[in-house]
Amino acid sequence: MAKVKKSPRPKAQTPKGFRDYFGAEVRERSDMLKTISSVYHRYGFDVLETSAVETIEALGKFLPDVDRPNEGVFAWQEDDSDWVALRYDLTAPLARVYAQYRNNLPTPYRRYSMGPVWRNEKPGPGRYRQFYQCDADTVGAANIGADAEICMMLADVLEEVGIQRGDFVIKVNNRKVLNGVLDIMGLTDQVQRDAVLRTIDKFDKVGEPGVRDLLGKGRLDASGAYIDGVGLSSAQADPVMAFLTSKGQDIEETLANLRAAVGASTVGQSGVNELETMAGLFQSGRYGVQQIDIDPSVVRGLGYYTGPVYEAELTFEILDEKGRRRQFGSVAGGGRYDDLVKRFTGQAVPATGVSIGVDRLLAAVGQKGRISPTSVGPVIVTVMDRDRMGDYQAMVSELRTARIRAEVYLGNPKNFGNQLKYADMRNAPIAIIEGQREKDSGVVQIKNLILGSKIAQSATLEEWKENPAQREVPRTELVRSVQAMLNGQA
Amino acid sequence: MAKVKKSPRPKAQTPKGFRDYFGAEVRERSDMLKTISSVYHRYGFDVLETSAVETIEALGKFLPDVDRPNEGVFAWQEDDSDWVALRYDLTAPLARVYAQYRNNLPTPYRRYSMGPVWRNEKPGPGRYRQFYQCDADTVGAANIGADAEICMMLADVLEEVGIQRGDFVIKVNNRKVLNGVLDIMGLTDQVQRDAVLRTIDKFDKVGEPGVRDLLGKGRLDASGAYIDGVGLSSAQADPVMAFLTSKGQDIEETLANLRAAVGASTVGQSGVNELETMAGLFQSGRYGVQQIDIDPSVVRGLGYYTGPVYEAELTFEILDEKGRRRQFGSVAGGGRYDDLVKRFTGQAVPATGVSIGVDRLLAAVGQKGRISPTSVGPVIVTVMDRDRMGDYQAMVSELRTARIRAEVYLGNPKNFGNQLKYADMRNAPIAIIEGQREKDSGVVQIKNLILGSKIAQSATLEEWKENPAQREVPRTELVRSVQAMLNGQA
Repeated sequence: MAKVKKSPRPKAQTPKGFRDYFGAEVRERSDMLKTISSVYHRYGFDVLETSAVETIEALGKFLPDVDRPNEGVFAWQEDDSDWVALRYDLTAPLARVYAQYRNNLPTPYRRYSMGPVWRNEKPGPGRYRQFYQCDADTVGAANIGADAEICMMLADVLEEVGIQRGDFVIKVNNRKVLNGVLDIMGLTDQVQRDAVLRTIDKFDKVGEPGVRDLLGKGRLDASGAYIDGVGLSSAQADPVMAFLTSKGQDIEETLANLRAAVGASTVGQSGVNELETMAGLFQSGRYGVQQIDIDPSVVRGLGYYTGPVYEAELTFEILDEKGRRRQFGSVAGGGRYDDLVKRFTGQAVPATGVSIGVDRLLAAVGQKGRISPTSVGPVIVTVMDRDRMGDYQAMVSELRTARIRAEVYLGNPKNFGNQLKYADMRNAPIAIIEGQREKDSGVVQIKNLILGSKIAQSATLEEWKENPAQREVPRTELVRSVQAMLNGQA
Repeated sequence: MAKVKKSPRPKAQTPKGFRDYFGAEVRERSDMLKTISSVYHRYGFDVLETSAVETIEALGKFLPDVDRPNEGVFAWQEDDSDWVALRYDLTAPLARVYAQYRNNLPTPYRRYSMGPVWRNEKPGPGRYRQFYQCDADTVGAANIGADAEICMMLADVLEEVGIQRGDFVIKVNNRKVLNGVLDIMGLTDQVQRDAVLRTIDKFDKVGEPGVRDLLGKGRLDASGAYIDGVGLSSAQADPVMAFLTSKGQDIEETLANLRAAVGASTVGQSGVNELETMAGLFQSGRYGVQQIDIDPSVVRGLGYYTGPVYEAELTFEILDEKGRRRQFGSVAGGGRYDDLVKRFTGQAVPATGVSIGVDRLLAAVGQKGRISPTSVGPVIVTVMDRDRMGDYQAMVSELRTARIRAEVYLGNPKNFGNQLKYADMRNAPIAIIEGQREKDSGVVQIKNLILGSKIAQSATLEEWKENPAQREVPRTELVRSVQAMLNGQA
């Protein structure tokens, strides 16, 4: 039976960029997903769950910003020579599903999806290769009301997961308005238009002067490298800058500024009209500008989307990794896109939708202290006499029947200290003790471990006397006494 | 802007062996996972979520029955030359996690996990390459109470998801008892012992005479091919057959039969003692033999596990694909295994656990008619006047604030028939109608679509008069009236 060892022991570790989630972390996320999905559901969206694996062909061009094939995804070739990959978002599978089932789905098709997505990117602090998204999209509706309602839904989601009004704002912009601005500038060259779009996408990072430089001759970036500009004259760049900074005191003023910026451009006016319609719907739904606002400085994804663009920003401040105060920032974003299904069917299908970065939102709710960092463990029935496991089993069964989380200690019971150490590691609220003496007298000891640890830290002698951390109760009173202690009544 | 088409349109379909899940299917599964996890949690288990991707090295030898490397899993090579794969079960990741974090985890470590697993196997009817598992394991406890409580937990799970007492039984067996039988037979050759183990694993399929043939000279299988036997004489095979058929009228008789079968074998007696201890704990926990029973005919996995083996069988009959009545069969199984962590650390760590086949259990609950096949859609606010989207938006907002699932129709509103068709496809319970006439009179029409469709099918004229499917109510009464209609009060 002697075995020759052929290879060294395997390493017990996750692949690079992946991690494990324990206990409370998992339950907090699952609670949040439940809350988000209940809001999505209330808005009339139906859930869809696609598999993790898609054909490369169906996934298409992969990540929005990456052109090289297979770049950014986890892909492999199947035996039968098909290439498949893990989904990198929930939108590409939606496009595939809509194209595949469009004759049997209602139009508009309103679906939500939640689950992990995978990106084959360089991991970093807090950046993992598997993370959760939670999306809602309306496919097949040109109606701008579909966009407006997603913004309202997003506001409801944030409030229901625990972000208070005033701590967030949903900002809305519109790609068509920018297109109108480029039109009246006479910027018809697509290469140059794309260069402008890519440039204003950096507005968040480099601010107004930075964008102005980059639209013109260029600028030195933080690393000292010179970044070439688009090459517009200062006068030519003016309309773009006017667009980006057109937010006024109220929505009426913002819309007026935008109308001025797009002049006679038909597409530009149509974009402003869409924003105006959405603003009217926000008002009808009783959402104020402290929840949803028109803000042309929101540019993330403006190059990707075709109409309204929206982003949920958390406005409270946190300390960044260098200890500087900054706004928490974006936790969700989306917009209107019209060409996603077209690759499959040849027909353009209007669609609009949002994606919530669940892990970032969890971090945000954690920052606001609305998630308790620890969770309460089970009641531990200790083992004083290993021959009486049946007695202890009867206790946990009674407790569980009363819906109390409980377990009997299943490690080696020899050392009682180890049992209490285990209860401590599990953050157990209560330990039950029944030795032979207790058994003979028909009683059990109920040890309040939370109170016990408080007393150990800080209690006065009087507090200790009034609130003993351990009580002896009749065996028949076990469940009632544990219940009372858990409820803080004893 | 003309584009040259380089490739044909991609096919909109899932990879072979994968599928999509819509609406009610997803919610039923997620409800079931919630119920199972609440029972696991009540038993003191903590949730763990590992990533879908593991290193090949950590996953180890892959599927229990497959020896060839990479066989049965979806694996690919990363750029940095590491091979990784999608997890094929939830036990291998648990072993990796325990080995990786053992110094920071409580002992015993009691965890549950749920989620998809992937198998690169030939798909078939109802067999997919991605499916859900829901596991609970206790790692680091040699105590046989850990096995007993998983059986009791399994009984609780089945009852809580809607399988009634009498429709299931948890059957318990023990590998050590069989080892004892082989010992007293004098069967010491490991190759022959393994052959016996593989043979009795077919007990489910070929029955008692089939196993007897296969332990002896062999037999013709259903396809007409001759299967070689292990080569035992009929007398030699007797103890194995005695073991398999040793179930008595009650647990006492079964244990007595097993004690006789293992004779003086120490390991065999230890196995019978373990079964006896477990039976005592079931009794202490007030679980009767109609819920959990000792049954030596349960052999699935007996070759894999090292101690107790347990399986949850549903005993009610269904019609199989050929229209024959048969028992629904197994929905969960597990047992004790001691060598899983050893590959990482060199130390044997006792562990026991169960895996529930969630999709099979869902099918079973569906068979018992405890899941409603359809789900109720949202209240649909129809669009009679596209210029008054704000009015309709105000209605859905009011309904949603009252926690009523509702949406305004977002397709092209021109054809009212299409709006009602959409409501029908969504299984909407109610449609709201407010044309200009209603607007001017301050009323809305509330159309009971469920009642309407019943009336269309079967109502008498009297029923129709008593219960008109459409009511006109004041606009201010919208929410109250919808609520009442949903509650069946109007």
